[in-house]
Amino acid sequence: MEEYLKIIEGQIKSSPFAGKPSNLYDPLNYIISLGGKRVRPVLALMGCSLFDYNWERAIPAAMAVEVFHNFSLIHDDIMDHAVLRRGNKTVHEKWDVPNAILSGDLMLVKAYDWLMKCDTELWHLLFGSFNKMATEVCEGQQMDMNFEVLDSVSENDYLEMIRLKTSVLLGCSIELGAIIARADETDRKKLYQFGVNMGMAFQLMDDYLDTFGDPLSTGKRIGGDIVSGKKTILYIHALNQLGSGFLKDFNHKDLDAETKVGIVKQHYVEAGSDKHLLRISESFYSKAKRELEAVKVPSEKKSDLEKLLGMLQNRAV
Amino acid sequence: MEEYLKIIEGQIKSSPFAGKPSNLYDPLNYIISLGGKRVRPVLALMGCSLFDYNWERAIPAAMAVEVFHNFSLIHDDIMDHAVLRRGNKTVHEKWDVPNAILSGDLMLVKAYDWLMKCDTELWHLLFGSFNKMATEVCEGQQMDMNFEVLDSVSENDYLEMIRLKTSVLLGCSIELGAIIARADETDRKKLYQFGVNMGMAFQLMDDYLDTFGDPLSTGKRIGGDIVSGKKTILYIHALNQLGSGFLKDFNHKDLDAETKVGIVKQHYVEAGSDKHLLRISESFYSKAKRELEAVKVPSEKKSDLEKLLGMLQNRAV
Repeated sequence: MEEYLKIIEGQIKSSPFAGKPSNLYDPLNYIISLGGKRVRPVLALMGCSLFDYNWERAIPAAMAVEVFHNFSLIHDDIMDHAVLRRGNKTVHEKWDVPNAILSGDLMLVKAYDWLMKCDTELWHLLFGSFNKMATEVCEGQQMDMNFEVLDSVSENDYLEMIRLKTSVLLGCSIELGAIIARADETDRKKLYQFGVNMGMAFQLMDDYLDTFGDPLSTGKRIGGDIVSGKKTILYIHALNQLGSGFLKDFNHKDLDAETKVGIVKQHYVEAGSDKHLLRISESFYSKAKRELEAVKVPSEKKSDLEKLLGMLQNRAV
Repeated sequence: MEEYLKIIEGQIKSSPFAGKPSNLYDPLNYIISLGGKRVRPVLALMGCSLFDYNWERAIPAAMAVEVFHNFSLIHDDIMDHAVLRRGNKTVHEKWDVPNAILSGDLMLVKAYDWLMKCDTELWHLLFGSFNKMATEVCEGQQMDMNFEVLDSVSENDYLEMIRLKTSVLLGCSIELGAIIARADETDRKKLYQFGVNMGMAFQLMDDYLDTFGDPLSTGKRIGGDIVSGKKTILYIHALNQLGSGFLKDFNHKDLDAETKVGIVKQHYVEAGSDKHLLRISESFYSKAKRELEAVKVPSEKKSDLEKLLGMLQNRAV
C-alpha cells in the first residue's frame, strides 16, 4: 500500500502538466496536488499485481483514472457551487468559471493521453472499459443534480446514482489493472464488481461520516449534507419512516445550522436510519469480499485488496 | 460534396445519442441537429476518398470530429455567455449552465466512442492525431479568452490563437480520413497542413464577413466583433496604423451599436485593414493549394477538395 502510494505521488510530481497558456495548465497541477486518498490509482496497481504481473506497467492506467477523477472534481465543483476542496479554494474560485470549464476539458483529454501510454494491444479493452465508465459518471452526476429538484427519491434511485457517480470509477480502476495483467474476462469482471461494490460501501460510509462522523477525525464540519438539503439514503429512510414530521424539520428555514443538524440527527437515530445505512453498506462490503474471493489467484495474493477494503469500510475519516 | 453531406446528415439522424437521464442526452441531439456546414466531417470523408479508398469506412471518424466540434460549441457558448447559436438558444440558455457543462463533457466522451468505431489497427495514429488536436483546441480557446483582458495582442499571437482554436481541427479531420485510407506519412502530413491552412483562410474570412459581410447573405447582424470589442486581425492592424485615434472610437461607450460599427468600419477601410486581412487570408489559401498539389495522387482526384477550398474562400456566408 505505502509503496503504491509513494509511486503514485512520485509519478504525479515527476510528470506535471505542461503547456501554454499557463492559466490553462496551472489548475490541473493545482487540483491533482491537493492530495486525497488516491484510492483509484492504487486500485489500478493492485489489480495488476494481484496476477503477479509487473505492476509498474499499470502506472499509466493508474494515472488515467486519477486524472479523470480530478477532471470530474473540477467540473463538479462548478456545478455544485463549491468554494472549498480539501480545505483549499476550488479551481473556479481560484481562477474563474470559464477557465475551470476549459481546464477540466483539457484534464479529460489528458486522461486519455495517459491511457494511450498503455500497451497498444490492450487499447481495445482499456478504452472500452474507460469510456463506458466516463459515460456513466456523467449520468450519475446528472442524476444527482436532478435529485435536488425532485420531491421524492427512492432508495433504489439513490443507490443507482451513487453506483454511476462514484462506484463504477473504482470498478474501472481495478479492471484496468487486471486488463494490463492479462487477466481473463471472468476475473476482470469479478474485479470490476469487487470495485463497484467497494465503491458503494465507500460512498455510503461517506454519507454516514458526513452526518455521524467525528469532526476531530474527519476535519470537516459535521452535517454538511443536512445543511445543504441533500437527499441521502439517511434522508430517504427517515422520510419513509417518519413522514411529514421529519420533513418539516429537515426543510425548516429558521433554524441555525447547528440546531438543525442536531434535530435531524435525532430523527435519523429515532428512525434507525443510521443503522439502516450501515446495514446496506455492510452488505455491499460483503458482496465485494465474495467477488474478490472468487478471483482465480491464490488467496495470499488477495491480502492487500482485502486490507484496503477493510480500511475503507472501518475508517473514521 | 452533396453526397457526403447527405451521408453525414443521415448518419446524425440515424444514430441519436441515447441514454438517461434525458436532460443529459437531449442537449447533444439538440446542438448537433442545429445544422452548420459540416465542413469537418466532409473533410474526413474527402481525405479518405482522395486515395480511392472506400470512404464509408471514414464515417465514424467523420462523426468523431463533428461530435467533438459540437462539444466545443456547448462549452464555448457558456464561456462566451452566448445566448444564440445558429439562431436558436444555446444549450446553457435552454437548459442551464451545470447541465450544459455536463452534457458537453459527455459529448467529448462520445467523440472518443465514435473514434473507437474505427479499425483498431489504426487507433494508434487516430488517437494520436485526435488528442493532440483536442489539447490544442483547449489552448486556443484559453488564448482567445486571455486576449479579452490584454491591452494589446500581436498579429502573430492572433494567428496562433486561430490556428489552435479553429484550424487544427480542420487539419485533424482530413488527416483522420487519410489515416483510414492508409495514406503514407508524407501525404498525411501534407493533408493536415492543407486543412490547417484552409482553416486559417476560413477563420480570417469569418472575421472579414463579420464586419464587411452582407447581412442579407449571412443572415447575421453585421459588426458583432466590433460591438463585443473582439481583438480581431482588423483591430490589430488598424490599431498599429492609426493608434489612439482609432482606439478612442473602438472603445467609445456612448455610441449606439450601429453608429459605432459604421465609424470603426470607416477606420478599417482608411487603414487598409480589410485589404490586409484579405491578403493574409489569400496567402493561407495559396499555401493550402500548394500542400494539396504536393499530395501523391492524380490531380483529377483532388478536384473535390479544390472545390471545397474555393467555396470556403469565395463565400459570402
